[in-house]
Amino acid sequence: MDGHSITMLGTGLIGDFYTNTLHSQRGRDRVRVVYSRSPERGAVFRDRWAIPESTTDLAAAVNHPETDVVVIGLPNFLHEEAISLVANAGKAVLCTKPLGRTADEARRMLETVERAGVFAGYLEDLCYTPKSLKAVASVRAGAIGDVTWVRSREAHPGPHSAWFWDGRLTGGGAIIDLGCHCIEIIRNFVGKGNRPLEVLCHTDTLVHPIADEDNAVALIRFESGAIGQFEVSWTFRGGMDLRDEVAGTHGTIWMNHFLRTGFEMFTAGGGSGYVAEKAETSAGWLFPVGDEVSELGYVDMFSDMFRAMDEGREPQETFYDGYVVNAIMDAAYRSAKAHAWAPVELDWRGGETPRIASTPVRYEGQIVIKREVLPDGRQKLILKDPATGDFSDRVVAGS
Amino acid sequence: MDGHSITMLGTGLIGDFYTNTLHSQRGRDRVRVVYSRSPERGAVFRDRWAIPESTTDLAAAVNHPETDVVVIGLPNFLHEEAISLVANAGKAVLCTKPLGRTADEARRMLETVERAGVFAGYLEDLCYTPKSLKAVASVRAGAIGDVTWVRSREAHPGPHSAWFWDGRLTGGGAIIDLGCHCIEIIRNFVGKGNRPLEVLCHTDTLVHPIADEDNAVALIRFESGAIGQFEVSWTFRGGMDLRDEVAGTHGTIWMNHFLRTGFEMFTAGGGSGYVAEKAETSAGWLFPVGDEVSELGYVDMFSDMFRAMDEGREPQETFYDGYVVNAIMDAAYRSAKAHAWAPVELDWRGGETPRIASTPVRYEGQIVIKREVLPDGRQKLILKDPATGDFSDRVVAGS
Amino acid sequence: MDGHSITMLGTGLIGDFYTNTLHSQRGRDRVRVVYSRSPERGAVFRDRWAIPESTTDLAAAVNHPETDVVVIGLPNFLHEEAISLVANAGKAVLCTKPLGRTADEARRMLETVERAGVFAGYLEDLCYTPKSLKAVASVRAGAIGDVTWVRSREAHPGPHSAWFWDGRLTGGGAIIDLGCHCIEIIRNFVGKGNRPLEVLCHTDTLVHPIADEDNAVALIRFESGAIGQFEVSWTFRGGMDLRDEVAGTHGTIWMNHFLRTGFEMFTAGGGSGYVAEKAETSAGWLFPVGDEVSELGYVDMFSDMFRAMDEGREPQETFYDGYVVNAIMDAAYRSAKAHAWAPVELDWRGGETPRIASTPVRYEGQIVIKREVLPDGRQKLILKDPATGDFSDRVVAGS
Amino acid sequence: MDGHSITMLGTGLIGDFYTNTLHSQRGRDRVRVVYSRSPERGAVFRDRWAIPESTTDLAAAVNHPETDVVVIGLPNFLHEEAISLVANAGKAVLCTKPLGRTADEARRMLETVERAGVFAGYLEDLCYTPKSLKAVASVRAGAIGDVTWVRSREAHPGPHSAWFWDGRLTGGGAIIDLGCHCIEIIRNFVGKGNRPLEVLCHTDTLVHPIADEDNAVALIRFESGAIGQFEVSWTFRGGMDLRDEVAGTHGTIWMNHFLRTGFEMFTAGGGSGYVAEKAETSAGWLFPVGDEVSELGYVDMFSDMFRAMDEGREPQETFYDGYVVNAIMDAAYRSAKAHAWAPVELDWRGGETPRIASTPVRYEGQIVIKREVLPDGRQKLILKDPATGDFSDRVVAGS
Repeated sequence: MDGHSITMLGTGLIGDFYTNTLHSQRGRDRVRVVYSRSPERGAVFRDRWAIPESTTDLAAAVNHPETDVVVIGLPNFLHEEAISLVANAGKAVLCTKPLGRTADEARRMLETVERAGVFAGYLEDLCYTPKSLKAVASVRAGAIGDVTWVRSREAHPGPHSAWFWDGRLTGGGAIIDLGCHCIEIIRNFVGKGNRPLEVLCHTDTLVHPIADEDNAVALIRFESGAIGQFEVSWTFRGGMDLRDEVAGTHGTIWMNHFLRTGFEMFTAGGGSGYVAEKAETSAGWLFPVGDEVSELGYVDMFSDMFRAMDEGREPQETFYDGYVVNAIMDAAYRSAKAHAWAPVELDWRGGETPRIASTPVRYEGQIVIKREVLPDGRQKLILKDPATGDFSDRVVAGS
Repeated sequence: MDGHSITMLGTGLIGDFYTNTLHSQRGRDRVRVVYSRSPERGAVFRDRWAIPESTTDLAAAVNHPETDVVVIGLPNFLHEEAISLVANAGKAVLCTKPLGRTADEARRMLETVERAGVFAGYLEDLCYTPKSLKAVASVRAGAIGDVTWVRSREAHPGPHSAWFWDGRLTGGGAIIDLGCHCIEIIRNFVGKGNRPLEVLCHTDTLVHPIADEDNAVALIRFESGAIGQFEVSWTFRGGMDLRDEVAGTHGTIWMNHFLRTGFEMFTAGGGSGYVAEKAETSAGWLFPVGDEVSELGYVDMFSDMFRAMDEGREPQETFYDGYVVNAIMDAAYRSAKAHAWAPVELDWRGGETPRIASTPVRYEGQIVIKREVLPDGRQKLILKDPATGDFSDRVVAGS
Repeated sequence: MDGHSITMLGTGLIGDFYTNTLHSQRGRDRVRVVYSRSPERGAVFRDRWAIPESTTDLAAAVNHPETDVVVIGLPNFLHEEAISLVANAGKAVLCTKPLGRTADEARRMLETVERAGVFAGYLEDLCYTPKSLKAVASVRAGAIGDVTWVRSREAHPGPHSAWFWDGRLTGGGAIIDLGCHCIEIIRNFVGKGNRPLEVLCHTDTLVHPIADEDNAVALIRFESGAIGQFEVSWTFRGGMDLRDEVAGTHGTIWMNHFLRTGFEMFTAGGGSGYVAEKAETSAGWLFPVGDEVSELGYVDMFSDMFRAMDEGREPQETFYDGYVVNAIMDAAYRSAKAHAWAPVELDWRGGETPRIASTPVRYEGQIVIKREVLPDGRQKLILKDPATGDFSDRVVAGS
Repeated sequence: MDGHSITMLGTGLIGDFYTNTLHSQRGRDRVRVVYSRSPERGAVFRDRWAIPESTTDLAAAVNHPETDVVVIGLPNFLHEEAISLVANAGKAVLCTKPLGRTADEARRMLETVERAGVFAGYLEDLCYTPKSLKAVASVRAGAIGDVTWVRSREAHPGPHSAWFWDGRLTGGGAIIDLGCHCIEIIRNFVGKGNRPLEVLCHTDTLVHPIADEDNAVALIRFESGAIGQFEVSWTFRGGMDLRDEVAGTHGTIWMNHFLRTGFEMFTAGGGSGYVAEKAETSAGWLFPVGDEVSELGYVDMFSDMFRAMDEGREPQETFYDGYVVNAIMDAAYRSAKAHAWAPVELDWRGGETPRIASTPVRYEGQIVIKREVLPDGRQKLILKDPATGDFSDRVVAGS
């Protein structure tokens, strides 16, 4: 079983998550060389994950003769440079989220990889959580009818690394850090071919003394009439809140990926160690997750990426998806600034999606608004007279 | 222990809930006479709740010589007329939600009772759920710091009575039916003295063949900077979704009032009977509530109303509150129509609320952005240089 | 609406809960006089609940000329004396749980009230929680078929008052304090006419330096074949764990009365005040209940008691029930000591209950063990040959 | 990255789970040949999982020249024969649960592999669920103090294959099918070196017309004083109930592995397909799990097994563990038959475990029973006089 040999760029929290995932269980893919600006951090990382080599030379890492895939786990402002290097090297490139700081930047990266003809994957882990994968499959199989509304929420007390807080390096605040996840989750549920038309976003900086938003909420209107709603916060208290809700014409989905997953622990203190990402306390009621890299989607994400390479197909999450996400975030920032709905500006490749619609049912010439089953088995109809617009009740025999 | 003697106007679902509450447990207040347009429905209601009299004469019911309180459980378009009658009778009046179909109508009712000098209470039950009362008290005691965001959600598959579906009689669709609850819940959490400035609302009619909205989501911006978010739907599947979430600078509150309250039942079918309001199925996994009238706030609501009368004080929920709610709903409808933020237009009696703010902490001249406790007890600081705006990490000894 | 005038005996935690309940909402019954051994505690209690009088004279309290009901909230070893006084006074008596320290003592109290012909109610609040009342009603309506197993669990970190820890005054440890609740909950679900035949109990003292058990688990075998299982602990960490589970041949019920009721709060600290009975922490994740006296059954319990008095019927929970509970606890203690199953010794008034049974269904002469619906609509049968006892699979067309 | 080449024996549900796990994600181990009694089932299985070969010749499968590991997924009565064949072949053997039908049979299998010196792993998946692994690690790190009690529950509506229902082929009923999981989960929490001394078990056959138990509950007493409690049922309604609870002197753990894991879906019907193992319905409220083979422990189980082989160490779950589980199940069956506690008879290799104990704290010569923090910061002590055994309260200044 041949695996892939990987250049890992970056040794921050995300590099740890990625390498932990790749080297866990019985995985056949391995990190061959890791790049860090700092020789010390590179050495520590190398030893932690049993990687043969570390280097401070970015180009050398990318062009390492024994690797065929480069994983980019660098701060946002370094993505474009790194992608150019990988494209030139003709290797497959997997880039962490968000793809760019702006849609313009993202589109240039997309064009770079398309021009070079290299495999390119967008590492949007939360679209690959096992729950999300199963839920999206259920939606596509018709389990909840047409999707009318998706809420995706990601909130925690703020990032762990300094550069995240500097909008000049990242492109923004909580939206650029967390909203990118929510937007792509929403797109998976409403359908990637469902064009995002416009965005209404409110942002504020309520707690942290920074220039960018530490809270935002936004509505995204799609061509079908579906509404995507994202809520992001760097001021949430209680851990990391990762929840998605989907409403459909025939059903409902609720997912909690982190704080309430069927694992609850009370400790009076005295134990020790890591509870979970963004956990705030180590005593009292705690809510760990089982296998964090699996629950957060990293395992299925890399499986899809490497299988797609092996099978010569596109992965579920592409650079084009990353570009669409950036375009929606750009619209969100424009909306917040203009205090108004803002159109999503993008080169759309996704086709058209019809409006959510149903044909009204008639009963003796009246329009049936609702049908309820009564305890005695009969049905109560709420009817509308198409001529007058008046509404009435009628109880009829059960079907 | 002297109680109150009540005229009940209306025999619909809300009349049942109200009378059930009043006549349950060891309550000392009793319905003396019930009014219904239909003599048959009046008689059935009278017998169900052991009420001495029913009548089809609205004025006679209001002016019944033995009652001192009139409870209005009539459709929205009849509130104003009924309130005038009660005010003329000089009796206490308790009116169901929403107070009016518009803020104008609500203000006229407010003026009517103020002119007459009668006690007036706004029957907003969901602000009185036991969880809400305790949560609001915790917030006021400082348990979660400053409130930054409140989400209130009410969604179900649509009302049971025909008139609810007719916007001419109600004033709108899901917003007027459900949004009124959410708005007042939000006001209780952000503070009733916190002025609502503007609203952004999106509405749509996705499932039911009606003229008014069956789905809406809105943002309300308050003077403090807090955001209230309501989500209402008449197309939700799975029962009645009643949840509130509150984020504060020092804490978080999550409340589920109906579908997940620690009572879970699976039945293969074969039993019988009422499960809960808006329950969609009677087999499979069911989620009943314990004491429905208590969990939905009816018990504490009437206790507050009658105690307030007895003590000569205002109740928690007043006609002025009802008017504010209508003013916010008006702004929501204007916003949806204009596809833009809309200002809340109202006669504000609530004073001023300062902006949420905190004084940045300094460490050796740098601004502290975040402070994390490391597993070894040391602290990691994320710092911002006030001169350059650059961010950096620093690990220091624990406090 | 005439109410009852009450003598309250005892000013401990339970007296607070009782009086809080009676004086809450719009209740028409009032405590007229409270008895305490200590004049100071009596005065404080009297002021807290606006009671006209307090006294240190037990007989005077019982015989107070203006009260018609006496509520006993005294330590276990004082129940018998108090009940005799009330019976002599010819008043209604409501006694807290457990009724006696032993079945012998309980039977004497039962005989005392029966001889005197006074109304007697057993204050077993947890059989009156709103969830329990609705669940028991569902079970009786057939929602889950025959009850095969009931688990009732009550666990917390130990009582607040010194006398609870002294088995000489109470009759035992965690079983006598908590097991009495569980046993009567179990009886309500399996049916009060379902005779408890024998008990297997294991007890241990694992944490507290006391002579009695701080942990116990027991199985109760009923005549129908149903098994009741109770788990009690004074060493639980995390608050008060109050959960019941019921398994039936056609369904399942899970109830969480306290720690997970749809109310979740995270606080970084800084607020203040009472969270809930037995809460261990005031920061981190907290799980308050809404209306504690309602959720714990006190409201419905007193409603049933006073209505039963007014209607001249027995309450749901009688002194006979209290006696049966004591008889089962006696058997539990005998079992633990003998390290063997112990028969329940009692004067049984409950009649006979048939064994849980069903008639096997046949398919072409074979016994049907199980029937599963396959994804394609066909049915898979697992069959047993009545002659050989061999098992086989068969896939047949759907019904 | 070299992986292992596997002979899979058996093509039932467990063979599907095993192969699905091995061939999922980026695993480097592959099934090379599968054995089935039936050539048709063998061929279907082979095609489903892309296995090069299938055969009906057991010995040929075991001795396949290209495999180094044999996985036994056969019915219980075939384990011993298969293990002998593998031991003779000198290959590593991984055997599904339970190891034997009795402890005698299990001990013979243990001796066979020890004599042959081959690697042997016991495929007890539920001890490897990600939640269990993390929880056990927390317990060992001291997070909840000494473990006093473990409840492990597994219940569903009964197995899918005919042979499971025939105690002659399996060794029993629900205990042998499900209890084996629970027992080993309990052992992991109380410590594998903690000797199981005796068992009290109650069994019954309440619903299915079979000779063996369809319900059982048991207590296992360990040397430390800890109690393990298992509850198994083939008559549970609502899906598959997989929950574990652990109580410690300083903490609590609750785990739900299947029915409540943060994934909730309501569907009005109309979708299609597999929901989850043992799901009973495909409409209404459904509770899928994310990645079933990960959540149920299969992924981590095989990782441990193959890593142990590669590293020359024992796996977490050994044939000796399987033998201990069988010895405890034997005691359970003897206990149920004798209606009494039954000693666990086994060759113990685990050493000794001291009794759970703590040294009482003293306060001014009195024994401190409990210490509570009052709202005002003072502490309330419950004290016991060592001379008289009397208990008292004392309020003192806070620490």
